[in-house]
Amino acid sequence: MSNTEKTRTTVDIYGQQYVILGTETQSHVRHVASLVDKKMREIGSRNPSLDVSKLAVLTALNAVNEFILMKEQVERLQSELQRKRTE
Amino acid sequence: MSNTEKTRTTVDIYGQQYVILGTETQSHVRHVASLVDKKMREIGSRNPSLDVSKLAVLTALNAVNEFILMKEQVERLQSELQRKRTE
Repeated sequence: MSNTEKTRTTVDIYGQQYVILGTETQSHVRHVASLVDKKMREIGSRNPSLDVSKLAVLTALNAVNEFILMKEQVERLQSELQRKRTE
Repeated sequence: MSNTEKTRTTVDIYGQQYVILGTETQSHVRHVASLVDKKMREIGSRNPSLDVSKLAVLTALNAVNEFILMKEQVERLQSELQRKRTE
């Protein structure tokens, strides 16, 4: 979709509704929201005493950690491709 | 560090302390926490009426979205490398 076109998507995460504005498709936003909801429920089931804000912060920590691991993998693959290009 | 060795790291995110248990180094955990704290402050400054739990959920959404984009990039790079290996 074009960069100027904004979508408005209502999602449900951990029993709370959120209206997400952005340039991503509604199906992408729903997919991301379902992953966040799933991760919050996983962490919540292991830590039933946590309140929602702590649970969401731990979910964000988890996601940022996975993002960093994936970014490191991108850097390794880019280096490997660079080596192959100059072989 | 070995897989069996657990670290206990206390971090401060958006004014709240969290004790994180895991196999990552303390310096890695602090780095991840600082990124979550920074992202919460960025989103919070643009949406000052949000409560902490909604802010944390939006931060988690943001992080999972960036993780997915990075994962897609890993898949593209892996395909490209695979093509190069069979050339």
